[in-house]
Amino acid sequence: MRQIAVGVVGVGGRMGEMTVKVIMEDPLASIAGGVVRINSPMVGADLGTTVGSEHLGIQVTDQLLDVFSKSDVIIDFSLPDAGAKIIDAALTTSTPLVVGTTGLTKSQEQALMDTSKTIPLVYASNTSLGINLLFALVEQISRALPVDFDIEVLDFHHNKKIDSPSGTALSLGHAAARGRDSNFDAIAKLSREGEVGRRKEGEIGFAALRGGNVIGEHSVIFAGAGERIELAHKTSGREIYASGALRAAHWLSEQPCGLYTMRDVLGLTSII
Amino acid sequence: MRQIAVGVVGVGGRMGEMTVKVIMEDPLASIAGGVVRINSPMVGADLGTTVGSEHLGIQVTDQLLDVFSKSDVIIDFSLPDAGAKIIDAALTTSTPLVVGTTGLTKSQEQALMDTSKTIPLVYASNTSLGINLLFALVEQISRALPVDFDIEVLDFHHNKKIDSPSGTALSLGHAAARGRDSNFDAIAKLSREGEVGRRKEGEIGFAALRGGNVIGEHSVIFAGAGERIELAHKTSGREIYASGALRAAHWLSEQPCGLYTMRDVLGLTSII
Amino acid sequence: MRQIAVGVVGVGGRMGEMTVKVIMEDPLASIAGGVVRINSPMVGADLGTTVGSEHLGIQVTDQLLDVFSKSDVIIDFSLPDAGAKIIDAALTTSTPLVVGTTGLTKSQEQALMDTSKTIPLVYASNTSLGINLLFALVEQISRALPVDFDIEVLDFHHNKKIDSPSGTALSLGHAAARGRDSNFDAIAKLSREGEVGRRKEGEIGFAALRGGNVIGEHSVIFAGAGERIELAHKTSGREIYASGALRAAHWLSEQPCGLYTMRDVLGLTSII
Amino acid sequence: MRQIAVGVVGVGGRMGEMTVKVIMEDPLASIAGGVVRINSPMVGADLGTTVGSEHLGIQVTDQLLDVFSKSDVIIDFSLPDAGAKIIDAALTTSTPLVVGTTGLTKSQEQALMDTSKTIPLVYASNTSLGINLLFALVEQISRALPVDFDIEVLDFHHNKKIDSPSGTALSLGHAAARGRDSNFDAIAKLSREGEVGRRKEGEIGFAALRGGNVIGEHSVIFAGAGERIELAHKTSGREIYASGALRAAHWLSEQPCGLYTMRDVLGLTSII
Repeated sequence: MRQIAVGVVGVGGRMGEMTVKVIMEDPLASIAGGVVRINSPMVGADLGTTVGSEHLGIQVTDQLLDVFSKSDVIIDFSLPDAGAKIIDAALTTSTPLVVGTTGLTKSQEQALMDTSKTIPLVYASNTSLGINLLFALVEQISRALPVDFDIEVLDFHHNKKIDSPSGTALSLGHAAARGRDSNFDAIAKLSREGEVGRRKEGEIGFAALRGGNVIGEHSVIFAGAGERIELAHKTSGREIYASGALRAAHWLSEQPCGLYTMRDVLGLTSII
Repeated sequence: MRQIAVGVVGVGGRMGEMTVKVIMEDPLASIAGGVVRINSPMVGADLGTTVGSEHLGIQVTDQLLDVFSKSDVIIDFSLPDAGAKIIDAALTTSTPLVVGTTGLTKSQEQALMDTSKTIPLVYASNTSLGINLLFALVEQISRALPVDFDIEVLDFHHNKKIDSPSGTALSLGHAAARGRDSNFDAIAKLSREGEVGRRKEGEIGFAALRGGNVIGEHSVIFAGAGERIELAHKTSGREIYASGALRAAHWLSEQPCGLYTMRDVLGLTSII
Repeated sequence: MRQIAVGVVGVGGRMGEMTVKVIMEDPLASIAGGVVRINSPMVGADLGTTVGSEHLGIQVTDQLLDVFSKSDVIIDFSLPDAGAKIIDAALTTSTPLVVGTTGLTKSQEQALMDTSKTIPLVYASNTSLGINLLFALVEQISRALPVDFDIEVLDFHHNKKIDSPSGTALSLGHAAARGRDSNFDAIAKLSREGEVGRRKEGEIGFAALRGGNVIGEHSVIFAGAGERIELAHKTSGREIYASGALRAAHWLSEQPCGLYTMRDVLGLTSII
Repeated sequence: MRQIAVGVVGVGGRMGEMTVKVIMEDPLASIAGGVVRINSPMVGADLGTTVGSEHLGIQVTDQLLDVFSKSDVIIDFSLPDAGAKIIDAALTTSTPLVVGTTGLTKSQEQALMDTSKTIPLVYASNTSLGINLLFALVEQISRALPVDFDIEVLDFHHNKKIDSPSGTALSLGHAAARGRDSNFDAIAKLSREGEVGRRKEGEIGFAALRGGNVIGEHSVIFAGAGERIELAHKTSGREIYASGALRAAHWLSEQPCGLYTMRDVLGLTSII
């Protein structure tokens, strides 16, 4: 990897803040600048101290072009309604763009697609390397193993989570169903209680543990006769979204125009 | 431990068979004899080859007293209806008795209690050391930790099991509830599906995985803020019931008259 | 538990800071005050904002007696050299004392013992409930199970840890050796590499994983023929030492004079 | 999959025996015959009862051609010195061949390669689906994740195993090294004991647990800052080699001439 200067949009939010921190710790990346919304009281403050780290000598700004013109890549963790201005700035400066913003409308997603014809662009609603890798692996294993390997998905989250299974657990189940060319709704067993009878072949079962302040753990189990494979992903800190976005920025800085996902960043496109 | 001669009742069944095998492998125990039901076609065959092991030079018999008179301890894995005769023989020869037979009626259990006034007697419907230990530990941990440690019970069994949670998982939950002096039915959450809301304090949650030919795995999790304790028991073979019974026999050979459980054998009586 | 007012000594340090926070979240505890060293620049600041939480309306002070006189229990996470003054204050106000300070000399420990003749006192170099519970459980299980259950200890820590096995792993091994009345040094196998031959009966084996920023995970495995028991403790945040100390404070507020450990707090004294 | 008739060579050995059993349980496969060495006393016995199952009405034979001529695919679990005759028979009848025999010499392997120009042939020294899948996954994940994900390999085996790490653990480490285009010997850390210092970036660490009668469990952990991925394979019975070979037979029955591995059977060729 070569050295890159990274600009961050949305440094007033928790994800933007963490992104500045992980860039500051990466010897192969430097901070080009940090952008907040127009007229934010944070404008003019030192970017380093703003994110709870050491003094950087770079002022927080609300001027997108100032930062974009100094950046090799932009990481955007702002809110959806800033999207149009960010796209304008990226097109003006031809700066590659990693978009980790969630909650985009269809027309906003369409605007990203159009933009990717002119500049390299990664769009990812979840920038964790590990979870994106797990989705790809589960689909692949599910395709490779015979159907008599029973698939089970277990998630463990803190005691304030209100839904079971977790959204990510369901996504893992969908990946498993895709690997078998199956209709998820027809084979998903979201919980078991009482005399539910023998497990059906091809079923994808779910179980949920809740307790303490566990951030998030997911396991996918493929249980055959005499052997089983277990894949687990365990999150111990929310900085993984920031470091995944930075990984995407490094990768994107060397790509041609186009719309990419975290799967491309991980080099997994061809496998499924 | 001193050397003991052990007689086995019920060597025609799978548990009796395994018990003979584990005794043959124990340098501190010898086989005194093996008993089958009256007029069984197995009578007269070699006990070793009958259980699929090497020749022993001891004939299988249907005469209880012949075996009891040569034994320091008897392990009984026969069926409940043989109970009266076995008690008679044990009283006649004053031989300590480990009873692993399941499905006894109340009056049969009363007969065992009466017998234990004259001879030492262990009665255990489950002779696995590990599971009995887990029951005791769970009750104890549940009593020791504050109620903001959330308790969850997970069981994993083969795909032919028809009920969820498993009976042992429910027993573990009961042990946890006892440790908190709580009413199990009021706090048990046997499964979770959909928007069930935040976990309630004091709840005992259950989750079940089913797949492959997993014999049985149970975990009890105590999840607090910032730490968790997990206890797991994993079974890889049904011989654990035989080796637990043999352990009980060694222990019982040195005890006075009385009715004992596996908890006594494990030396855990005082802790809860 | 009844409502208690808790004073904290050492609120300028990380452990004292966390202790104030966990007290603020406990409906059955209130903050009586927070003490820093004499002439600290923190004196006079609001205790709540000082620890990174909301305004409390209580000023940080360097006057021990002011806080001790308002407290039902004191939690001390200060440095060892403050010990003599803290003991004086506690004796003056007869306030029960939880001492979580590490690195005390023999004479400082002796002073605590003397103090405990007049006031209730918990002394614990590690105030985590979970780890203290694990030590007790491992000793107990090791005593209960026959020696043909092989004991293995696994620890997993971050990639900056320089020693293997971890100190806590070694302590767990010592607890297991005590349970078998064995000499730890004679049976410990701290690592395995190459053709080391069959495992010896009675051996306690260790293995260490290092990677990422894992705070600390310990497992103790008792592996028999056909079954195994696994105990694990997983730390996800250092607040467990603060919440353990608060638990000790609640318990201590209802005890007579005496010197206690976390094992007493957990109610485990009688079991081993 | 279509229905296939399978012939088994080496039914006098444990693997051949298990293979006959798994074929008998597969509704999409039938037994074409079972071959033992010339003049074996097993010749003429019923194949079903010979393997400890129900009567099949097929006699065990020492005539390869009799079985090959009735088989859609042959599974060979015989000893290496039978190789030349088996190849001759397969070439005569043009029957696809799954070879699970281990310990072949270079020239025997060359003979298999030559044979595969005329008939479809799978050669696999380990026919477990799960382990072969794990090798491929580990190489792929290792390639996808940045080098600051620390890789650790843990194996757990019974107390009679003499070497640490296990051969499979080392193979998993080699797969991880390949994924990073690294020299395994330069980065492997086979054990840790004492003050070994901080973990080196890029290192592949190993740890080994030994105890009880655990058949074999392997975990590969990729530990990053804030997240980790764990892959585990757990074996509970040696029938997995037989069922993997049968899976290979089904797949091979629909392939053109060529030499294949279990990776081809699993459809994983393209990913690495």
